[in-house]
Amino acid sequence: MGGDFGPTVVVPGCAIARERYPDSRFLFFGDEQLIRPVLDKHPDLAAVSEIEHTDVAVRMDDKPSQALRHGRRVSSMWLALEAVKAGRADLMVSAGNTGALMAMSKLCLRMVPGAERPALAAIWPNIRGEGIVLDVGATIGADAEQLVTFAVMGEAMARALFGIEKPTVGLLNIGVEEVKGLEYIRAAGQILRETSLPINYYGFVEGDDIGKGTVDVVVCEGFTGNIALKSTEGTAKQLAHFLRAGMRRGLLSRIGFLFAKGAFDTLREKMDPRKSNGGVFLGLNGMVIKSHGGTDPEGYAAAVSLGYHLSRNDLMNKIGAGLETFSKDRVSTEASPAEVVNS
Amino acid sequence: MGGDFGPTVVVPGCAIARERYPDSRFLFFGDEQLIRPVLDKHPDLAAVSEIEHTDVAVRMDDKPSQALRHGRRVSSMWLALEAVKAGRADLMVSAGNTGALMAMSKLCLRMVPGAERPALAAIWPNIRGEGIVLDVGATIGADAEQLVTFAVMGEAMARALFGIEKPTVGLLNIGVEEVKGLEYIRAAGQILRETSLPINYYGFVEGDDIGKGTVDVVVCEGFTGNIALKSTEGTAKQLAHFLRAGMRRGLLSRIGFLFAKGAFDTLREKMDPRKSNGGVFLGLNGMVIKSHGGTDPEGYAAAVSLGYHLSRNDLMNKIGAGLETFSKDRVSTEASPAEVVNS
Repeated sequence: MGGDFGPTVVVPGCAIARERYPDSRFLFFGDEQLIRPVLDKHPDLAAVSEIEHTDVAVRMDDKPSQALRHGRRVSSMWLALEAVKAGRADLMVSAGNTGALMAMSKLCLRMVPGAERPALAAIWPNIRGEGIVLDVGATIGADAEQLVTFAVMGEAMARALFGIEKPTVGLLNIGVEEVKGLEYIRAAGQILRETSLPINYYGFVEGDDIGKGTVDVVVCEGFTGNIALKSTEGTAKQLAHFLRAGMRRGLLSRIGFLFAKGAFDTLREKMDPRKSNGGVFLGLNGMVIKSHGGTDPEGYAAAVSLGYHLSRNDLMNKIGAGLETFSKDRVSTEASPAEVVNS
Repeated sequence: MGGDFGPTVVVPGCAIARERYPDSRFLFFGDEQLIRPVLDKHPDLAAVSEIEHTDVAVRMDDKPSQALRHGRRVSSMWLALEAVKAGRADLMVSAGNTGALMAMSKLCLRMVPGAERPALAAIWPNIRGEGIVLDVGATIGADAEQLVTFAVMGEAMARALFGIEKPTVGLLNIGVEEVKGLEYIRAAGQILRETSLPINYYGFVEGDDIGKGTVDVVVCEGFTGNIALKSTEGTAKQLAHFLRAGMRRGLLSRIGFLFAKGAFDTLREKMDPRKSNGGVFLGLNGMVIKSHGGTDPEGYAAAVSLGYHLSRNDLMNKIGAGLETFSKDRVSTEASPAEVVNS
């Protein structure tokens, strides 16, 4: 029911995803009267789908507390999460209210042992292909240990999504020297350097390393990540604006635009926000994918595809194993008197 | 002596600036044997310039503490700052070591009454033209009051630079609702809403508002601002990379590129990092402009031009007056029992 368009985008989006992954099956939670007519237009999808009706939907402008008050146990969002919790669904995709989704996810699914707070991981196109940046806004503020758990979860996601055996992980900071930047980031860097975790820790990275693709996984707390994400979106729109304005300016430019259309299409495809639609809430006992609320069916299909891939590649177990190793490593490190003297 | 190229960029840069502003005069601090030969190639500049020799230069990789140890009172950087302090120069431009420049500036010039910590203000091209973002990395962390002083200083700079009577000011946050984001930013927002300062406070802005040009002045603490600045630089480079790659791909695209060259030139000019070269350290008792270390003469001339404009438009007095008004406003607000009850 979520997003700007509800079932009219969600259902066609799932139809695209089903074509890509014929072994997928779908549970739709929400107002059957709205979902059924759209679903009927996609018989192949309808054949592998069930609708579970509920009158209650979280509104896009609900505060998380309001959403919990009127939506707990009864809203489409909550029921979809319960399906994940009960093992009836491998993952849940929502284009709905982000704050409400996070609050409900935490309450319904609870955190994985070893993760204190969820992180929202975004797929970020870069010069080398794609990277993962987390947290882009699930949790404001973090301490060193939390940042390291983000690194562990992001690394697991990169293995699951990109199929890389040893993804590189960097901590977002200002200045790349070890002595620079914020204290909790330096402390997280020290943990990552000294840990026996099988993490390919690169070191600090700066804002411009995100676009360069210097590392596979960029780790930061949610305020910083959200600022980076939104600033970047703004710049991409700004450049597109200047380019369009320049192209409209004269006859030669217009002609040139026609000739060079292929090049622009390449650019548009590379930077297509629909292709990288879908953030993943990491740290929960279950897979929750957040689609952009304003996306179209193609974009929604990308969010579903992301979930499909991560599920097929065993993200939840990879995260669980990574966090367990980290917890054990911390306990043994903290118990060692020599290490305490060093720190 | 600073930057990647020393006098070979600084002197020709000043020659360009002198042509633009024939009433400008120049003091060069550093190794006369290196400066003199370059200056001799620009007789018009040489006619309005003096060289003050010193053997000592701050190195680009000096830590601020090292720079102060070997460069205090004797380095070219320090001597240029002293010229500002003594009123012999209206402003100082350096392409040198940023950390050292900030440390030396604070020590030599001291802070303006009412400003606790310096902020580095950047000129940021946006869809509507240009805006100011501060702090982009002078100081890590800030409290509400410091953020408000940044707002006061940035607003003064926008008046001086853009000639706008009532520039709009926004606080960079995640989410634009009053209840969102970090506590110290919400507190700064409250001060700005309630203050009797003649500031046109817009409210919170998000990362993408920087590129949109939603407000004339975007205020944040230095870590956040630096992440936003660098992320944006990375995205701009990434888009240019994709576009170049697409253009090289086929004959049609190549032909199109030739036709559309004007449009690309427009884009390049709009986003030319040289044009917006020059950050201003605000909050000091004197004007200090930081040029990018890797810039060319055109870029260096932009940094000098920025300083010229700000000086001609009385930036220092505008900042002083703004901070004084704010201090008085705070004292009267804090002394009011009714306000104390409200807060």
